[in-house]
Amino acid sequence: MAIKKLPQEEIDQQLSQLTGWTLEGGKLHKDYTFDDFVAAFGFMTSVALVAEGMNHHPEWFNVYNRVTIELTTHDAGGLSQLDFAFAAKADALS
Amino acid sequence: MAIKKLPQEEIDQQLSQLTGWTLEGGKLHKDYTFDDFVAAFGFMTSVALVAEGMNHHPEWFNVYNRVTIELTTHDAGGLSQLDFAFAAKADALS
Amino acid sequence: MAIKKLPQEEIDQQLSQLTGWTLEGGKLHKDYTFDDFVAAFGFMTSVALVAEGMNHHPEWFNVYNRVTIELTTHDAGGLSQLDFAFAAKADALS
Amino acid sequence: MAIKKLPQEEIDQQLSQLTGWTLEGGKLHKDYTFDDFVAAFGFMTSVALVAEGMNHHPEWFNVYNRVTIELTTHDAGGLSQLDFAFAAKADALS
Repeated sequence: MAIKKLPQEEIDQQLSQLTGWTLEGGKLHKDYTFDDFVAAFGFMTSVALVAEGMNHHPEWFNVYNRVTIELTTHDAGGLSQLDFAFAAKADALS
Repeated sequence: MAIKKLPQEEIDQQLSQLTGWTLEGGKLHKDYTFDDFVAAFGFMTSVALVAEGMNHHPEWFNVYNRVTIELTTHDAGGLSQLDFAFAAKADALS
Repeated sequence: MAIKKLPQEEIDQQLSQLTGWTLEGGKLHKDYTFDDFVAAFGFMTSVALVAEGMNHHPEWFNVYNRVTIELTTHDAGGLSQLDFAFAAKADALS
Repeated sequence: MAIKKLPQEEIDQQLSQLTGWTLEGGKLHKDYTFDDFVAAFGFMTSVALVAEGMNHHPEWFNVYNRVTIELTTHDAGGLSQLDFAFAAKADALS
């Protein structure tokens, strides 16, 4: 998959296709809420497997039933297609 | 929670309330199928958390998208209320 | 387990028994570094199981091979014995 | 990585380099024992991440602190280099 930095118009266009994702400090950002810790951490484990399969890893935070994911592509110096592909997969698992 | 062995009529009655669970060799048994390994192992992790919270652990098998769970209560010498509570929680997570 | 807030001298004493834990904003804080994401997330899963077993959940952050854990006891309005018990278990798993 | 079936002499040679692995029904087989379920399932999660990263998945069984792993390469109709690479990674995580 391409790891070149996407131009801003492409970022805006792809962001408009996603639900609940915003740009924060140049990173893709989303807050998820689940029923409880059991559901939240089950989601995290599925996302971790996707991350390892893509070799693309999130910055993420959890407390109890809440999970925050932030995505960027360090090798590209900004957002790449990998981040949007990852975001779509995380949403499909949530 | 009670860990006494349930009488057979109670087992039959509770089993009739569950979907997809059978008795095999005196244990509660169910085969689950998921879309892929990512979904299957995310489910397993949630179930593992429930197991640790209940201090009641399954015998289980996984290959790719399939998960087989078997339940019994060693301390009770057979099926107890814990096994049916566990089965209901696993179903809710699947 | 007790959920009452510990007095400061007790906190200082217990903190001195731990390695790598500090107080940040009134919470117990530690940064762990692992070989890679596989090791980091395996650790997180073991810690998640401990958390569910104790019904005491961390605030935690991960990026690739780094895991940051912060602990406090909301019901106690500060640090309780649960936080120190949790910290010791996390260290034993790391 | 190669997915061709290894000749028997190559299997025997590689098997002799591993500790605790045997051939059972043509599959690589090993039984692991851990301190408790928390340690066993943390190991399984790390192994699951390796599996997804390799796109090569085990047949495995767990009860409490015991994990049994069996490996074969369906596409190769027997044992391939993938199975031995997987076995070595699982051992490194145990």
